[in-house]
Formats: sequence, structure tokens, C-alpha cells
Amino acid sequence: MSLLIVGSLAFDNIETPFGNSDDTLGGSATYVAISASYFSDDIKLVGVVGSDFGDDNIRLLQSKGIDTEGIQVIEGGKTFRWTGRYHYDMNTRDTLDTQLNVFAEFDPVIPHRYQQCKYVCLGNIDPILQRKVLEQISRPKLTICDTMNFWIEGKPDELKKTLELVDVLVINDSEARQLSGDPNLVKSARIIRGMGPKILIIKKGEHGALLFTENGIFAAPAYPLESIFDPTGAGDTFAGGFIGYIAKHDDISENTLRKAVLYGSTMASFCVEKFGPDRIQEISDLEIQDRFQSFLNLSRIED
Amino acid sequence: MSLLIVGSLAFDNIETPFGNSDDTLGGSATYVAISASYFSDDIKLVGVVGSDFGDDNIRLLQSKGIDTEGIQVIEGGKTFRWTGRYHYDMNTRDTLDTQLNVFAEFDPVIPHRYQQCKYVCLGNIDPILQRKVLEQISRPKLTICDTMNFWIEGKPDELKKTLELVDVLVINDSEARQLSGDPNLVKSARIIRGMGPKILIIKKGEHGALLFTENGIFAAPAYPLESIFDPTGAGDTFAGGFIGYIAKHDDISENTLRKAVLYGSTMASFCVEKFGPDRIQEISDLEIQDRFQSFLNLSRIED
Repeated sequence: MSLLIVGSLAFDNIETPFGNSDDTLGGSATYVAISASYFSDDIKLVGVVGSDFGDDNIRLLQSKGIDTEGIQVIEGGKTFRWTGRYHYDMNTRDTLDTQLNVFAEFDPVIPHRYQQCKYVCLGNIDPILQRKVLEQISRPKLTICDTMNFWIEGKPDELKKTLELVDVLVINDSEARQLSGDPNLVKSARIIRGMGPKILIIKKGEHGALLFTENGIFAAPAYPLESIFDPTGAGDTFAGGFIGYIAKHDDISENTLRKAVLYGSTMASFCVEKFGPDRIQEISDLEIQDRFQSFLNLSRIED
Repeated sequence: MSLLIVGSLAFDNIETPFGNSDDTLGGSATYVAISASYFSDDIKLVGVVGSDFGDDNIRLLQSKGIDTEGIQVIEGGKTFRWTGRYHYDMNTRDTLDTQLNVFAEFDPVIPHRYQQCKYVCLGNIDPILQRKVLEQISRPKLTICDTMNFWIEGKPDELKKTLELVDVLVINDSEARQLSGDPNLVKSARIIRGMGPKILIIKKGEHGALLFTENGIFAAPAYPLESIFDPTGAGDTFAGGFIGYIAKHDDISENTLRKAVLYGSTMASFCVEKFGPDRIQEISDLEIQDRFQSFLNLSRIED
């Protein structure tokens, strides 16, 4: 089923304890789309780049079967650029520099033939823009939304208006605590689901993820990696695997949502193995199936 | 099957954001034994108390079917006493006062009829004393051991000698990192299992627990509690449920170990609901089965 992805396209300069990577393809929409492309063959991407983005990167996305007609290229403009540094434990990072460039004026225009998409993924952008996207879509079956502390602190009222319109919110544990104002994640989930999204996923990094629905709670483990090379994009890669799996099966039953969380976790576990999107460009279907099976085995118990 | 538990018996003064509880029955052996008593009906307890411990507390343990002949009562002595305060997030605590009293001279003597026990649980005591216990046991089928940062820092060489003799080590994530010297838990597990214990359980509090064996890794979720009233003894209660379940079934296959981890988690989730051991004194078998089922449901996926 058709999947619309709206978010940022960027170049990242990444510093980790293992080395640096400059001018790396990044942005939330990039990671979501590449990850989802392993499941869905009808992905439409909306974002904005400068003329420095390059045909190579467009072709890379197209090679994954992604429809790039919705990418606006601003002639003479420069693509969004982020510079960050990870600490030794890889759980915390500092943003060293942000240059919004063409992204500062981003006004998402959804091409006419994208407006019937059944599944919509709103990457981490201004909640006002997220609503603007939804106003242009006719009747999506499921809308998934990401956000971050920047919007929770900076535009809480706008964010709440957007949350009333989405079905699934994907955030991390510190964002959930901040958005709800409660340190307990179970209470947080109840508060946030009361804001609109009936389905909530709280990502806990090396501790896995929690899925909250009307049917209860699902606890997904994290893949026990011996080393994390670069966490950049792992959260977006999770979202891409999650929504890509759902769009492929065109089903939002509890069991499909749970499997989608594990497929999202599977994709994220690959993402952190190399710099930027290097690893998620090159995974085989067999590798995905093998790792998904490893995830199942992590919590398998025979009665 | 027979289960020998050796550890501390204490009185605790506990301060939490929800209130205080003074002169509360505590100590590692207390929590382990009460928790294990829901599974095993052949539990033998070795510890030391002062004459202030009181017949009521002995009778409480006996009412759970626990053999208390191995509890040494030092006439005129005072029982070990611990005072601690939990912070708002309940994840960290300060020890305000420790009075070892009769525990300072504890020399565990295993009564003759305890020496054939098939299962042995060494609570968190001096690793030299843990070895002294093992020297008095003929041929246990499985030995499980707890320790803490105090011994990892203070007696690392003695601890390592003890670890060579035990089958199962149960520690929390920060202790695992400290003992191994590696921040990554998967690497930590490999290092620690190389020190002796072929089975390692790393408790992660609100993030569940990891079981490492020769067959792989099992990730147990934590029960998503809306509030934690008092975490005192939760780790020992986990160990008691784990070893009690194993002793009951007299089986150490992978699937039994995995179920034992979930039963340990089940018991610990009850423990934190009231002060000290108040809650784990009064659980019904039906409540235990219901919550165990909830744990299974937390990670259930249909293929």
C-alpha cells in the first residue's frame, strides 16, 4: 500500500569515538524511506534540498524504489546540515552546529498523485508543517508522527494540536517523560494517548521499545549488540521499518503492530553498525529475516 | 528439591517519597527465602541475628515452611541494621547508616543435615564467607550467587576466587559494568562468564533482565508498574523466585531457566508494591500465576 514520507533531507558531519564522517547523507526522511523500502514498493517522499544535494543522492533513493518527485530542489540553495558528536557511551550526543539553509523555508507541498496515500509518516519537523501535510491528504488509513524535545519545549500548543490528528506517535523515553510531565513511563503513556495518538511507541535505546495500544503493552527487547558504531538515524530507521511493514501488509491488528515494532528494531540494529545510512543501504532480505528471527528468539519461551 | 539460602537477616529503616518504615524486617536471606517459599517446600536458612530479632520474625519465616534451625541467635547481640533513603525517581538510593552488629562476626556454620542440599543460594555477603559455605556443602547441583559494588571494589581477588566456584551470578547492570570493566553489557557478560559462572543474569531494574547462557541471550521485560512504592529487597526477591522455581522443578534446561527469570521478575514486581517484605508475605498462588501470564503477554507474538 502507498506510503507517504515527509521529513528532512540533510548532510551530516558525525563525530564518534571510532572516527568522523563528513558530508554524510542524512535527515529523517532519508532514513525512514530507505528503511521502509525493504518492505513497501510504493513509497513517495516529500522534502526540500539545495542544488548541492546532488543527483547521486536522488538516484540512491530512486534505486530503492522511492518516488522522489516530491523532493523540492531549491536552485542556488544549500541543503540542511547538522554536525554532532557522540560521547564514549554512545547514549548521549552534542549538537555542534545546525545550518537549516533551505529547510528554514520548507513549505511541504504534496503532489496531487501523492494525496491518496493510505499510510503517512511525518518525520520530526515543525508540528505546524506536520498539520499542513495532513490537510493535503484525503483520508489516510494510518498516520504516524515523530517529534523531539525541541518542539515539546518550543511549540507545545502546536504539537498538541498535531497530536490530536495522528494515530501513532513514536518518541523516546526522555521525550515521553517531558511531553507527559510524569517520570513513570506507564503513566506517561496513558497521558500521551489521551492527547490523541491511540498507538504510542516509546523507544528506550539499548533497552528496547514499548508499544502501547488499546489492547495492552508490548515490550520489545533491543538487539544485544557488542558495539554501536554510529547511532545517527537509528530512531528514524526504526520508524521506517515499523511503518513499511504495516504498509506492506495493509493491516493494523495488534499482532501486526507487534511484528512491525520488531521489524523496526531489526532495521535500527543494522543502522548503528556503520556510519550514517551506509549499512541500511546494503542489507539483504535474508539478513533482515535472520535478525528478525534473533529478535523472536530473545524472548521465546515454550509453555 | 532442597534449597539452602545463606545471607543477611536485618532490620531496615526505609525512607521513600511516599513515607517511612522503621524496624522493617529485611536482609538478603529474608527476601530470597520468602520469595522462594512460593515454589519450594524444602528451604533451609542460614544467617545470624541478635536476641532483638524476636520470635515473631522467626515464626513468620517458619509459617512459610522455611527451616530456621540454621539461624544463629547471638544472645545479647543486636541484629544487623540498615537505614536508607530513596530519591524521587526510585532508581537511586543513599545508605544513611549501616550497623553490622552481630553480622560483623558472622561465620556461617552449615548444620549437618543441610549439607546435602542440591541447590544453594549465596546472598550478598563477603565472598570469603560465600566460599566458606561452599566448602561445607557436599555436591550441590546448582549454586547461585549475588554480590555488590562494595565487594567488587573492596575484595576483587576474593570475589574472583568465589566466582570460579559458582554456576549462576545475579547482579545488576552497573555491577556488571564494574566487574567486567566494559560499558557494553554483551561484552561484560562474555568477560564475567569467563570468570566462572556459566549462567549470568543482569538485572536492569525498570528495563527488565538479561539471561546469558551457553545457548544465547534471553531478554525478560519488566512489569510496567504505574508506581513503585519501595524497591528494597526487589533484587533478592528476584533471586528467590528464580532459584525457588528451579529447585521446585529440579531442572536447569534453557527453557526452565527462562521461565525462572520470568518468575523471579514476577515476584520482584510484587515486592515493590509495599514497604519491605509486606507484599511478598501475602501473595496468593493465583496472583502469581496471573502476573506470570501478564509477563508472557508482554512479549507474545503469533507467527
